[in-house]
Amino acid sequence: MELLKNRIRQDGTVKGNDVLKVDSFLNHQMDVALFDEIGAEFLRRFDGCGVNKILTIEASGIGIACITARFFHCPVIFAKKSQTKNIAGEVYTTKVESFTHGRVYDVIVSKKFLGPGDNVLIIDDFLANGAALAGLIDLVNQAGASLAGAGIVIEKAFQPGGDRLRASGVRVESLARIKSMSEEQGVEFVD
Amino acid sequence: MELLKNRIRQDGTVKGNDVLKVDSFLNHQMDVALFDEIGAEFLRRFDGCGVNKILTIEASGIGIACITARFFHCPVIFAKKSQTKNIAGEVYTTKVESFTHGRVYDVIVSKKFLGPGDNVLIIDDFLANGAALAGLIDLVNQAGASLAGAGIVIEKAFQPGGDRLRASGVRVESLARIKSMSEEQGVEFVD
Repeated sequence: MELLKNRIRQDGTVKGNDVLKVDSFLNHQMDVALFDEIGAEFLRRFDGCGVNKILTIEASGIGIACITARFFHCPVIFAKKSQTKNIAGEVYTTKVESFTHGRVYDVIVSKKFLGPGDNVLIIDDFLANGAALAGLIDLVNQAGASLAGAGIVIEKAFQPGGDRLRASGVRVESLARIKSMSEEQGVEFVD
Repeated sequence: MELLKNRIRQDGTVKGNDVLKVDSFLNHQMDVALFDEIGAEFLRRFDGCGVNKILTIEASGIGIACITARFFHCPVIFAKKSQTKNIAGEVYTTKVESFTHGRVYDVIVSKKFLGPGDNVLIIDDFLANGAALAGLIDLVNQAGASLAGAGIVIEKAFQPGGDRLRASGVRVESLARIKSMSEEQGVEFVD
């Protein structure tokens, strides 16, 4: 998606060799006009797949997932990093290691909202080692739901998550795939 | 907003006398078609106020804020509950007590995205004791930005937050104001 790649080149900042800051438009300040273009692109890629639920994880996936859901005319569920008994009743639970935060979260989804009749599109802002995405897929599997695939805004293709999940049979569509990056050279995309 | 009140009556569940579960459409599973109606209503109430930024707090405010921002043609900033050094550089910081989670969070916004030239609309899903909203207002004040007001989806009007903030001069627009609620009687709205 050229619009997105150009925006990353223009407004993204590389720290070291593996941190890409896109907080001016993606995951702190959010450019919802760009999100509209992203949602339209996800629809183009997953149109006709029968998606009836979009699943994401708090917090920075939620905005993109909601704007995307307008194109699919379906609800969004966001998986919660659990630290509360706020959600009564039964939940699906998985564990996700956050390398950014250096800890392991319990991630939960209420059983009320995901089941065997659902065909789920997972949406998230970043894919690197794939821990969050693998956790969300685990929740979909626990629910007995179908997985249409995963729509990712930015994939760090030099980390193993995307290829590992594709090899396991998951359809992963990333709108910008980063081959390499550095403070000196900036960002280089796949293709 | 009658559509919202009817949805709360239909799909909301009261636990005890002060917990309203709306997780089937508002803050776990999210009905983005309803969010479109909510965004249109916020525009109706704050149209012509010169809003150029929407500010919310993670996690459940983000979806509503992003859909609302499409109507205002402006970006969203979500304040982060800090537990990481993920955001480099300078941030505005305030403290917010979460009664749901029984703890105090540092809540931060990068100084890059909020300043004296901004006219901010705060959006959130719930207003009860007003701790989160007061924290967001503190961030707006620290930035030297103007505050157009606060758009709230559900206000527990039997708790003091809304009236206290209105008395301090903040324009608070709540789309559904709950006068009282109980498991036996359900939800009763103001007016």
